[in-house]
Amino acid sequence: MNEGAKAIRLTDEQRLDWLRLIRSQNVGPRSIMAQTPHNTGAAHVPHLAQSLRRRPRGARGAAPSLARRGGASAPQIFPREAAEREIEAAQDLGVALIAVGEAGYPERLQMIDDAPPLIAVRGHLPALAMPAVAVVGSRNASAAGMKLTQIFARGLSEAGFAVVSGLARGIDAAAHRASLAKGTIAVLAGGQDRIYPPEHGDLLDEILPAGVALTEMPLGWEPRARDFPRRNRLISGLALGVVIVEAAKRSGSLITARLALEQGREVFAVPGSPLDPRAEGTNSLIKQGATPVTETADIVAVLEPIMGMALTAREPEPTNGDRPYDVDPAADERARIVALLSPAPVQVDDLVRLAKSSPRVVRLVLLELELGLVSLV
Amino acid sequence: MNEGAKAIRLTDEQRLDWLRLIRSQNVGPRSIMAQTPHNTGAAHVPHLAQSLRRRPRGARGAAPSLARRGGASAPQIFPREAAEREIEAAQDLGVALIAVGEAGYPERLQMIDDAPPLIAVRGHLPALAMPAVAVVGSRNASAAGMKLTQIFARGLSEAGFAVVSGLARGIDAAAHRASLAKGTIAVLAGGQDRIYPPEHGDLLDEILPAGVALTEMPLGWEPRARDFPRRNRLISGLALGVVIVEAAKRSGSLITARLALEQGREVFAVPGSPLDPRAEGTNSLIKQGATPVTETADIVAVLEPIMGMALTAREPEPTNGDRPYDVDPAADERARIVALLSPAPVQVDDLVRLAKSSPRVVRLVLLELELGLVSLV
Repeated sequence: MNEGAKAIRLTDEQRLDWLRLIRSQNVGPRSIMAQTPHNTGAAHVPHLAQSLRRRPRGARGAAPSLARRGGASAPQIFPREAAEREIEAAQDLGVALIAVGEAGYPERLQMIDDAPPLIAVRGHLPALAMPAVAVVGSRNASAAGMKLTQIFARGLSEAGFAVVSGLARGIDAAAHRASLAKGTIAVLAGGQDRIYPPEHGDLLDEILPAGVALTEMPLGWEPRARDFPRRNRLISGLALGVVIVEAAKRSGSLITARLALEQGREVFAVPGSPLDPRAEGTNSLIKQGATPVTETADIVAVLEPIMGMALTAREPEPTNGDRPYDVDPAADERARIVALLSPAPVQVDDLVRLAKSSPRVVRLVLLELELGLVSLV
Repeated sequence: MNEGAKAIRLTDEQRLDWLRLIRSQNVGPRSIMAQTPHNTGAAHVPHLAQSLRRRPRGARGAAPSLARRGGASAPQIFPREAAEREIEAAQDLGVALIAVGEAGYPERLQMIDDAPPLIAVRGHLPALAMPAVAVVGSRNASAAGMKLTQIFARGLSEAGFAVVSGLARGIDAAAHRASLAKGTIAVLAGGQDRIYPPEHGDLLDEILPAGVALTEMPLGWEPRARDFPRRNRLISGLALGVVIVEAAKRSGSLITARLALEQGREVFAVPGSPLDPRAEGTNSLIKQGATPVTETADIVAVLEPIMGMALTAREPEPTNGDRPYDVDPAADERARIVALLSPAPVQVDDLVRLAKSSPRVVRLVLLELELGLVSLV
């Protein structure tokens, strides 16, 4: 949690701008987060949000956007009225919208490469400040897998960890159930009003008094198949480590494990018999170097030293001292970058070199193009 | 196998001397092997064996031996007649006695610290020259454990490895059965005529056409409980690596794993559910760094590069060029060493330093004392 001097709180107007930017089409977390100095977030991006207000509406979409030239649909800035409606509806449901960098945004989640610019959370929000461990596994779990999940989730809960999982059938549900008394975090693939699977609405009601439901998706968003792997990066991103209890080959839990590794999180796997297909994934993880665990103490022994460590932000990208971050790029610089673009793909690094610009400015200009704020001339 | 220029073959008389030395009480493999340059064996110890013949019988036991002064029973040189009877009985049973360093003595076994000075083998002796993998596990095996053993042992057999095991009930027997067509090595804790468990006599009959029964114990030796851990060092010593299929906590298989590690052998363990007590030992090994295996290919992948490597003898102990190995220590040197001894334990290193002698000479004098060939004055 950002409780220190760095944490900020957006004004209502800033939050509205931020929401409009995030909900605009063709703008992913990476595009947006590329504009923010790591670990500071929304507070440092007045530039783009202000641009939305400064520019006359007619200016948008007047020129063919980069996306359109490349064959994609034209970007649309999310309407102010829709953003206002979303904020109101969230308030009615007891859902808080927290921007990256704000107090209350989970500190570890903020450090992942594609941290969600805005999260929608409800429940007992202090649970987001607990050290967390993810416990995940197959939906089609065995009785033994359910029992092991219970043992690990309860043990971690008693050791002071919030248990993070995906509210799915099988292992996920068992993990939440065994830890709901002391705080568990359910990460959703859809909106806060679109619980999946629907029959776990009751479980979520039991989770919220001490725990949290968290999603990056807007209200009303029905989770699609591809939202689940995307969601999994939040499960691992929130946690110090991920425990995979049972997982077949090519299962979603293995995606979570891979994401966890990419995020520098610990990966724990519960071994099983080579004759048990539900252990294929976990055994394979162990062969690849995941920490094998047979009891909670194995996990705590690895995580305790990490918990004590101060969170270290990634190396910030070097910036020129004479070009503060939220200042517009010079007009000729923007023109140079735009002139280098064509429908053929090009690396940001190449643009930086050819335009004699900085990565930050290049990415800002690209985002402006995506949003239709700048035309390709 | 010692097929090269280094391998020797003892004369009948040398073999008899060697057997008498080995069968003498209070003389362990380490005492004897300490006298042999590593990787050469019996051929280089004429000194002691000849001493037995040179000295008049009355000289033995005339003075209180070191062992006797320390409270242990007096050492006895094994009678020539008994040695002759043992060699004859072995021949009748088709058992060959092979001394360390001789052609036919398994090369890897020769490299362990406490290699047996003499092994008794029968069956298809070329099987001892195959690259070998040990497959061991609990006697009280589960059906799944038996099936896994069959999969691994058959796979290793088909990959060209001799499977080494202990002829015990459970995993051991399954390992031998699955590999007896192409060659398996049963290492016994007792004599060649004292098969344990007795009901595995039939299994041994099936093993011998393509495989080998091996022991360091004399004919007629009934295996005692403590002979099994001692035997286990031969199982791991014969092999490139040891596969532990199922093992409870504090089981004999874990002793084999520890010995294998000490011997620089690969340790493979088959994972199992944390809820299965028969997987406690193997999971614990994996946690400690053993290679987890779920299929034969996992084992072959690790062993193939090692198989290709030439066997490297351990660093030989430095010897003085002007004091060839099989020359008696100088009389005053022997006297200096003996004078330093008392019933209180003392380190060989300290004796070397205080007597201004060499480790090799100190150990030779100690062995002479144990055998009663030298008195404590």
